[in-house]
Amino acid sequence: MSKSKKAYAAAGVDVDLGNRVKRGIQALVKGTHGPEVLGRIGGFGGLFRPNFRGMKDPVLVSSADGVGTKLKVAFATGRHDTVGQDLVNHCIDDIAVIGARPLFFLDYIGAEKLEPHVFTQLLKGFAKACKAAKCAIVGGETAQMPGMYHPGEYDLVGTIVGVVDRPKLIDGSKIRAGDVVIGLASNGLHTNGYTLARKVLFEQMGLGLDAKLPGVKGTLADELLRVHRNYQPLLASLPAGVVKGLAHITGGGLVDNLPRVLPKSCDAVIDCSSWKVPAIFDHIGRGGKVDRAEMYQVFNMGIGMTIVVAAKDAAAVQRKTKGVVIGGIVKGSGSVRLVL
Amino acid sequence: MSKSKKAYAAAGVDVDLGNRVKRGIQALVKGTHGPEVLGRIGGFGGLFRPNFRGMKDPVLVSSADGVGTKLKVAFATGRHDTVGQDLVNHCIDDIAVIGARPLFFLDYIGAEKLEPHVFTQLLKGFAKACKAAKCAIVGGETAQMPGMYHPGEYDLVGTIVGVVDRPKLIDGSKIRAGDVVIGLASNGLHTNGYTLARKVLFEQMGLGLDAKLPGVKGTLADELLRVHRNYQPLLASLPAGVVKGLAHITGGGLVDNLPRVLPKSCDAVIDCSSWKVPAIFDHIGRGGKVDRAEMYQVFNMGIGMTIVVAAKDAAAVQRKTKGVVIGGIVKGSGSVRLVL
Repeated sequence: MSKSKKAYAAAGVDVDLGNRVKRGIQALVKGTHGPEVLGRIGGFGGLFRPNFRGMKDPVLVSSADGVGTKLKVAFATGRHDTVGQDLVNHCIDDIAVIGARPLFFLDYIGAEKLEPHVFTQLLKGFAKACKAAKCAIVGGETAQMPGMYHPGEYDLVGTIVGVVDRPKLIDGSKIRAGDVVIGLASNGLHTNGYTLARKVLFEQMGLGLDAKLPGVKGTLADELLRVHRNYQPLLASLPAGVVKGLAHITGGGLVDNLPRVLPKSCDAVIDCSSWKVPAIFDHIGRGGKVDRAEMYQVFNMGIGMTIVVAAKDAAAVQRKTKGVVIGGIVKGSGSVRLVL
Repeated sequence: MSKSKKAYAAAGVDVDLGNRVKRGIQALVKGTHGPEVLGRIGGFGGLFRPNFRGMKDPVLVSSADGVGTKLKVAFATGRHDTVGQDLVNHCIDDIAVIGARPLFFLDYIGAEKLEPHVFTQLLKGFAKACKAAKCAIVGGETAQMPGMYHPGEYDLVGTIVGVVDRPKLIDGSKIRAGDVVIGLASNGLHTNGYTLARKVLFEQMGLGLDAKLPGVKGTLADELLRVHRNYQPLLASLPAGVVKGLAHITGGGLVDNLPRVLPKSCDAVIDCSSWKVPAIFDHIGRGGKVDRAEMYQVFNMGIGMTIVVAAKDAAAVQRKTKGVVIGGIVKGSGSVRLVL
C-alpha cells in the first residue's frame, strides 16, 4: 500500500487491494466477450455494439435481481463459486420468459471488506454462467463498505440486458382454455425461499451442513447450493410460435408467477400430484410444519419453468424439453388453482 | 396477511407487504416512461424499444454502481429522498464520459425488512432523477433479507444503459500535449469518500449531524447529503467534436480517474490552486490530519467532471459550462501530476 493512502485504509477502505483484485479478474471477464464487446474493462462504461441483423423490431429486455439469503449458505460453507452462477442464470430466466436471449450482464458485489479469494470465486461463477449463455460481462462494481455488511458477508446484484424481436415476443396473449401447462424440473430451491428453508432446516430441525437426508443426493449443503438452471437455450430450441406463455417460478411459486402470463379470462389448474416433488421440499414442509399451500407459494416445489402450449403441441414440447404436463388452462379470471 | 403465509412471515419475509409497497410505486415509475417503454411493470423483464433513428452505429453503454456509505448519512438523518437521485446521477455520469445519453435504469434495494415509507422515498429519488434525465425506470428488485443487513439499513444498486453513436464516442484518443483540462464544480462529496469523511467528522471531530461549520451552507447533514450532479445535459450541449476526453471524478479522485482517458503518451498537470476547494474538504483534511495528496485521491475536492479540449476551444467551453481551467496536457506516460 502506498504511504499516501493511510487514512482511507485506516477507515476500512483499501483502494490498492481493490485495484489489485480487479486486475486479477480481467482474463475471466474477457473470456465472456464476443465480437459485440468494444473497448476495455477499467473504462467508465461497458461498450456493447449489438448485432440486430435479421431482426424486424428489436426490443431490449432487462432485469435486475439478487440471490437472496442463499448467500448465507455460501457464507456458512465457504463455497462461493456457485452463487455467481445462480445470479446469472436467474437473471437470464427472467428475460427468457419474454422470448429474449441475453446480450450482456453487469454485477455488483457489496461487502464490508474485499476478500480476494472470495471475490475471485464469485467472478468465476459469473464468468462460467455467462460464457455458457453467450452473454458478455461488460461491467461491474465492487463496493467496500465498512459497517454496512457483516464481516465475511456480501450481497450480490446482477443486471441482465437481452433482446427479442418484437414479433416473437411471448406475452401469454394467445393462451386459451384447453391449452396445456408443461413444467420443467428445477435444480433444487434455485434462489427462493432460503430464509424459510434455513430457519426450518438449521434452527428448527437442528441439522448441520453435512447432514444426509433421505432422498437427497449429497449433503444438505450440496443440495442447498445446487445451481439455478438456465432454461434459455432449451426454450430457444423450441419451434417458433409454439410457446404461448412462459413463467419463471421464483419467489411466489407457481401461485404468483404463472398468473403473470395468464390472460384475465383464463385460469391455470395445476395438478400437484402430476410430478414428484423433490425430497428436500418434503423435509422442509414436514420439519417446519409449513402449510402445504404456503409451500407452493414460497418454493418452486420442483418446477422451475412452466410452458403453456396448445394441446396439439404438448407431446412434441414434452419430448424436446423433458417436461411434464402439470395442468391445463380453463376459463377463469387470471389465477392459478392448485389441486393439492 | 393471508393465513397461508404464516411460516414465511415468521421467518422474516412479508410477501404481502412487498407486493403492497410495489403497487404503490407504479405511478412514480410510469412517470419516467416515454414512448420507447413497452409493456407493464410486474412482468418479468422491462421492455424498451430503442429509437436509434439518425444513428450510424449505435453502441450500448452500461454501468452498475452503488452509493457507498453515503447511505449511512441517510440512515442517521432519516432522509431517504436524495440517495436515489445520487445513484441515478452517478450512473448517468459514468456513461456520459463516453458520450452516451441514458436510455433506461434498473434499481436494486436490499434490506432486512421493507419499510414502506423509506422505500417510497427511495423510489421518489430514483423517479425524480430519471425523469429529469429522460431516462426510463424499466425494472428493479427489492429484496427482503433477514440477517443480511442491519435493522433499518439497506443497500442500493443501480444499473444504467445508454447509447452513443460510435462516430461520436469519446475515448480520449485525440488528446495531445497542449490541450487544456477544464474542471466542472461538484456539488459536495457526491458519492465518494464517505467512509473516511464520516470517520473524521463524526468520530474524530465528534460533530453532530446539525453542526454548522465555517464556509459550509446549512448543516453538516445538508452538506453531506447534497445530490450528485448530473453533468450529461451540459456535456451534450457542447458542439460536436470539441470534447476530446471526459473523466467522472469518483473514487480515486482526479489522480485515478483522469488517467482513464489519457493516451499513454500524455500526462495531465493539474494546478490545485486553480479552483477554490469547498470548505467541507478543508474541514475533513484538517480534522483528520489527512495527507493532502491522499485527500485528492479519496475526494473529488470540488471537481466532479473534467473535460479535455484543444486550447483554442477552452474559452468557449468554459463559458458554456461555467468550468475552470485546472490544468493542461503535456508529454508523459498516461498519469496525472498534481501541483499541490
